[in-house]
Amino acid sequence: MIGQKEWAIPEGYIPDGSTGPAPEMVSHETICILNTTNKDATVEITAFFPDREPVGPYEKTVPSERTKHFRLDEFDEPEEIPRGEPFATVIESDAPVVCQHTRLDSRQAENALLSTIAYPGGGED
Amino acid sequence: MIGQKEWAIPEGYIPDGSTGPAPEMVSHETICILNTTNKDATVEITAFFPDREPVGPYEKTVPSERTKHFRLDEFDEPEEIPRGEPFATVIESDAPVVCQHTRLDSRQAENALLSTIAYPGGGED
Amino acid sequence: MIGQKEWAIPEGYIPDGSTGPAPEMVSHETICILNTTNKDATVEITAFFPDREPVGPYEKTVPSERTKHFRLDEFDEPEEIPRGEPFATVIESDAPVVCQHTRLDSRQAENALLSTIAYPGGGED
Amino acid sequence: MIGQKEWAIPEGYIPDGSTGPAPEMVSHETICILNTTNKDATVEITAFFPDREPVGPYEKTVPSERTKHFRLDEFDEPEEIPRGEPFATVIESDAPVVCQHTRLDSRQAENALLSTIAYPGGGED
Repeated sequence: MIGQKEWAIPEGYIPDGSTGPAPEMVSHETICILNTTNKDATVEITAFFPDREPVGPYEKTVPSERTKHFRLDEFDEPEEIPRGEPFATVIESDAPVVCQHTRLDSRQAENALLSTIAYPGGGED
Repeated sequence: MIGQKEWAIPEGYIPDGSTGPAPEMVSHETICILNTTNKDATVEITAFFPDREPVGPYEKTVPSERTKHFRLDEFDEPEEIPRGEPFATVIESDAPVVCQHTRLDSRQAENALLSTIAYPGGGED
Repeated sequence: MIGQKEWAIPEGYIPDGSTGPAPEMVSHETICILNTTNKDATVEITAFFPDREPVGPYEKTVPSERTKHFRLDEFDEPEEIPRGEPFATVIESDAPVVCQHTRLDSRQAENALLSTIAYPGGGED
Repeated sequence: MIGQKEWAIPEGYIPDGSTGPAPEMVSHETICILNTTNKDATVEITAFFPDREPVGPYEKTVPSERTKHFRLDEFDEPEEIPRGEPFATVIESDAPVVCQHTRLDSRQAENALLSTIAYPGGGED
């Protein structure tokens, strides 16, 4: 069992514009969550913005011994995350999970990628 | 509440040259800071260079429950960070925050991206 | 001696499609493992998926004071990892190692790269 | 003062081939080291390979309150690091530093980038 129950991703930006076939080459951000435990994880994702109140939580489930890669451009409840605006996310889970953040940017003709393990909370923070 | 009060980003380089529409496709580096606490964070960013004294601090505010994505090519006080030269940054905050470093490089026709969670200080360092 | 015995990589996706000469420009993911200890490390890699049971372990050896960069598109025993589908990996080693995750995506004419140090387990997790 | 005295970068690969003007667009890997302490840091970098003995140390200095971005394709003493072959690096410093790893790959017409904070040793490892 590997992981933490809280994670943060300060970088968030869904590029407004894409080149290439949908859906895989449409510019997007993904939060990849891995649950190696023997129970399903209920995950709450909150989005933070520069100039307005946080939005969420977006509720998701990551079943036991499964990984889910959530595309942020497909979030719609309670509201969509707008393209072309900066944001950040916090992930809270009721079971230990591991989170990684990835962006595919295809605004120009050839795509660009970034990725990083998210920042794990835990301990006395 | 998730985060630390000190962060380091050894990599820094604002490419000198760009392809595509301004401002979003102009080559740039961003420090993304997330403040999930219930108080505003006063943040001091210091830039380090290979062959001269550090510059700063650049003072910024990240309000409570907000994220700010600071473009380093827009820093001007006490002085601009020059393009095309290596540097590094240290971020000190009076409240716990989380920091991520991103570069968009559009010197060639198609942009490239990199990103990583910054290195958190804390503990007895 | 630097490292941990357990690592997780929530992001996994071997792009289906490539541009450029094989094998180096074929779209692929790599798990880079460094063993600085004075004994060979036996490494077990398990793949997790969104909707089915985990697959593995894939057994590998990283000799003492060596690094091995394993391409996931070359894994075949117990089964291949399918292209174009999300997955995640967990790495378990009998000696401390360090793991890093890299993807080269050459679906479009110019390649894109991502990389991150994997998430280390350890402690009371 | 932020940092650790030992760092590892399992991924290493200097692409053999480049597009664009030298030296900045020549494919390369960089180890960025930041020394925020009040003493100069003597840094020893060792390169590890898949099938032969480690090479090094490459000795470098990172002065107090400075950052140095070392291009691995410029290392020559005790020997060059070959292009087109996988390797890994360990960085040992006599003062706390912070390390980040970056690659610029310009084998195809448009460059790609990757970057990550290196893995910090320390504690009882």
